[in-house]
Amino acid sequence: MTVEGAGAPRLTSKGLATRRRIVEGAAEEIREQGVTGTTLDDIRARTATSKSQIFHYFPGGKEELLLAVASREAERVLEDQEPHLSNLRTWAAWQDWRDAVVRRYERQGVNCPLGVLITEVGRATPAAQALTARLIDQWQAALRTGIRHLQDSGDVDRRLDADRTAAALVAAIQGGVTILMSTGRLTHLEAALDTTLTLLRTTAPATR
Amino acid sequence: MTVEGAGAPRLTSKGLATRRRIVEGAAEEIREQGVTGTTLDDIRARTATSKSQIFHYFPGGKEELLLAVASREAERVLEDQEPHLSNLRTWAAWQDWRDAVVRRYERQGVNCPLGVLITEVGRATPAAQALTARLIDQWQAALRTGIRHLQDSGDVDRRLDADRTAAALVAAIQGGVTILMSTGRLTHLEAALDTTLTLLRTTAPATR
Repeated sequence: MTVEGAGAPRLTSKGLATRRRIVEGAAEEIREQGVTGTTLDDIRARTATSKSQIFHYFPGGKEELLLAVASREAERVLEDQEPHLSNLRTWAAWQDWRDAVVRRYERQGVNCPLGVLITEVGRATPAAQALTARLIDQWQAALRTGIRHLQDSGDVDRRLDADRTAAALVAAIQGGVTILMSTGRLTHLEAALDTTLTLLRTTAPATR
Repeated sequence: MTVEGAGAPRLTSKGLATRRRIVEGAAEEIREQGVTGTTLDDIRARTATSKSQIFHYFPGGKEELLLAVASREAERVLEDQEPHLSNLRTWAAWQDWRDAVVRRYERQGVNCPLGVLITEVGRATPAAQALTARLIDQWQAALRTGIRHLQDSGDVDRRLDADRTAAALVAAIQGGVTILMSTGRLTHLEAALDTTLTLLRTTAPATR
């Protein structure tokens, strides 16, 4: 998932690699120093790039770079769930995925790099909304595929709407993470995942 | 739910009424003008109170008043779900509650008065965390009672952990609302509520 600035130049593969390096360096810097504590000079120093290089790749300056970093952090949300998320074929695989999600957010704790960036860019801006919507769509699609696998194998009732169930799962995770960030408690994320999976299991025709 | 400042004086019933009036007026002002656009003078003008009265009831000044308003907004989150939330005895009652929740957040849209106040007070402050935790606990307790009613009437499997299921429902709503606020879409809130209720129904011993 990449959000390119409207005025971004077409890049060669070397250019893409440099752009990627700037985004990765900026992401690390922001994870360490926080978004308000990070200047373009910090990012230049970390990535060994010049001011003109930064503005070549991000003509919109810091705001455009922040959006690119947010896009990268959104990619990471999904990457951190792999290889489980793309392989949800059995209940055991779903359980491994569940554990990976809980571990990821336990590690992350009350600070969400993506949330901070989205807030900085402006939650209500079209660019931020599009980025969030895309992450949710991709996440939901992966879970929908997994639910369909379970329906195909007879482990989940075929009459269940796989897309809405996947949407409910994404919402449950999002809510568990929001509560974790607001209260420091992991219990709601775990309860949300476990309850949904337990309830899904009870729909299996074989158990009825 | 009331969060009193540490140094708040003991109040007579008349004093409590005045304090209440200031909080309600401040809440209305903030809903209309936004929290950054609201000054203590605006609140004084709206509630016809003097500077010394405001500081009598809120010795900590604007910050303490904002926390009291946040506490009031948290109460409203639960009040807006009544009379349904306290009366979740049948599937029909649960459906009415579900509709009330969706309507409430549809009306609210992308702006959450409580969320804005919590952000302003400082999401990570102990006072804000305590306030959020209390709202979640009260919400979860009400839903737990409702799930136990369904278990008692044989409409939901008694082996289900009512408290964890209630926690999952609170997380699902919270996630649906977060997604609504980030993308403007109501679909995830609806999917989260409907899927959980549909799945809960399938656990009923009678349907198995």
